[in-house]
Amino acid sequence: MTPAEHAELALLVEVAGTPKPGNVDRERDLADLHFEQFLAGAVGARDGLEAAEDGPVGDAFETAVAGMADGSGTNTQFGCLLLLTPLVRAASRGDLSPEGVTEVVEATTVADAEAFYRAFEHAEVAVPDPPEGIDALDARRGAAAIPALRERGLTLEDVMDLSTDHDANAREWLQGFPRVFRAAARIEAGRGPLADRAASAFLTLLAEEFDTLVVTEHGEGVAREVQERALSLQRADADEVREFADDLVERGINPGTTADLTAAAVFVALERGVSVRG
Amino acid sequence: MTPAEHAELALLVEVAGTPKPGNVDRERDLADLHFEQFLAGAVGARDGLEAAEDGPVGDAFETAVAGMADGSGTNTQFGCLLLLTPLVRAASRGDLSPEGVTEVVEATTVADAEAFYRAFEHAEVAVPDPPEGIDALDARRGAAAIPALRERGLTLEDVMDLSTDHDANAREWLQGFPRVFRAAARIEAGRGPLADRAASAFLTLLAEEFDTLVVTEHGEGVAREVQERALSLQRADADEVREFADDLVERGINPGTTADLTAAAVFVALERGVSVRG
Repeated sequence: MTPAEHAELALLVEVAGTPKPGNVDRERDLADLHFEQFLAGAVGARDGLEAAEDGPVGDAFETAVAGMADGSGTNTQFGCLLLLTPLVRAASRGDLSPEGVTEVVEATTVADAEAFYRAFEHAEVAVPDPPEGIDALDARRGAAAIPALRERGLTLEDVMDLSTDHDANAREWLQGFPRVFRAAARIEAGRGPLADRAASAFLTLLAEEFDTLVVTEHGEGVAREVQERALSLQRADADEVREFADDLVERGINPGTTADLTAAAVFVALERGVSVRG
Repeated sequence: MTPAEHAELALLVEVAGTPKPGNVDRERDLADLHFEQFLAGAVGARDGLEAAEDGPVGDAFETAVAGMADGSGTNTQFGCLLLLTPLVRAASRGDLSPEGVTEVVEATTVADAEAFYRAFEHAEVAVPDPPEGIDALDARRGAAAIPALRERGLTLEDVMDLSTDHDANAREWLQGFPRVFRAAARIEAGRGPLADRAASAFLTLLAEEFDTLVVTEHGEGVAREVQERALSLQRADADEVREFADDLVERGINPGTTADLTAAAVFVALERGVSVRG
């Protein structure tokens, strides 16, 4: 399979993995978000993922997000695609490693940043208020922020650098994707069906650091509570994990950034030869 | 979405639909066949489905089967692809109707038939013994049957015509896909999540005629028993259907042709505007 095919498959395996408390998975829909929408989002993203193999990362990301939104009708996998796009490019260049993906990140341009901002016009994305003094770069402004980007000469790497304090995905971009590669190694070392290993990777990632989407939507206190509960469930049985999942759904808490990291880790594991054949 | 994207999505929605007694679905793996393998088969088939939009149907089918087998490691969706390939072509030509797909079928050539036989070399497919006197055209011979095809000048339509008595998919090819279009209309008229409607279409198709893969693998008596049981379950509750599913799995009975028809019907429904947004 090509990197783009592996990336699309990673999106599908991620959503199939169960239990992934607070998220849609093989066993759970949310009231206004169905499993099929994630399937359609993955199918729709494929063209953008193919573009990431040999075109600019920013344009590829925007194409992937537009296709995802066209397929699913909503934001199903924006954060996953933000991680997958540079990883697909690194894989396609033959160096899917922290160094290889850092080279891709460092090669991003102002044009990539512009495409990233345009991507926000295709889907609704939860974003915290920007730090004081950089309102002009608020991602919610979409393409309207482009003049400010150009004026300051900000590349996509620079833009991600502005978000490392409140977005775990941006931290991955700036630091060589450390959590993704570690989670991929755990998936590679695991046993059993790949979607089960993805779900297990999700729980470990959730216990490892608090989910920044939960911070954005519910505050740091809730995010820490979720993290601690995930930590306490590392050796729990399925019923306890399911109870945790029920609780998160009831409270509308969705650790979406942790799902993004999981999809990216599944991609790396697939590229390294992990098989769906169980 | 393009016809190829809808076709890939139809493969994914089909396998997600639950309960589909005897088949892998969102809630059930078989001992040696996992949900993820169907996800990977669908991703792998995409290139062939794209080729069906504007290339020869036979080559597109072979490419789709090769990609499916490369992705899943087995035969997950051979029959689905046999139905989807001409349907994608008809949709791409702007006439997804019994007449439109019949035009595609009637335009097939000996080269399409050759590619169809080559496709059997990529995956293991359950095929009954050929009728007496046409051993030379046994599909299990793969490319070795090509000289016999050429000698007799058989197109892919002709080859399907030889199988109408024992293969419901071949009957669809020859008769303008009547069961597929009827099931698609039921899916269009249905309500609720699309994968649930796909599962309901599966049960209706199973009750409507006996599954020809079950005949091939277990004989007509078993196939009739399965059909009658499906008929008796048309208004049953979920537990009764689940009991039926358990029984089929225990006995190794897999109504795979009915799943093929379901995937094709989901494709037609998607092309006609049915949405995953539930």
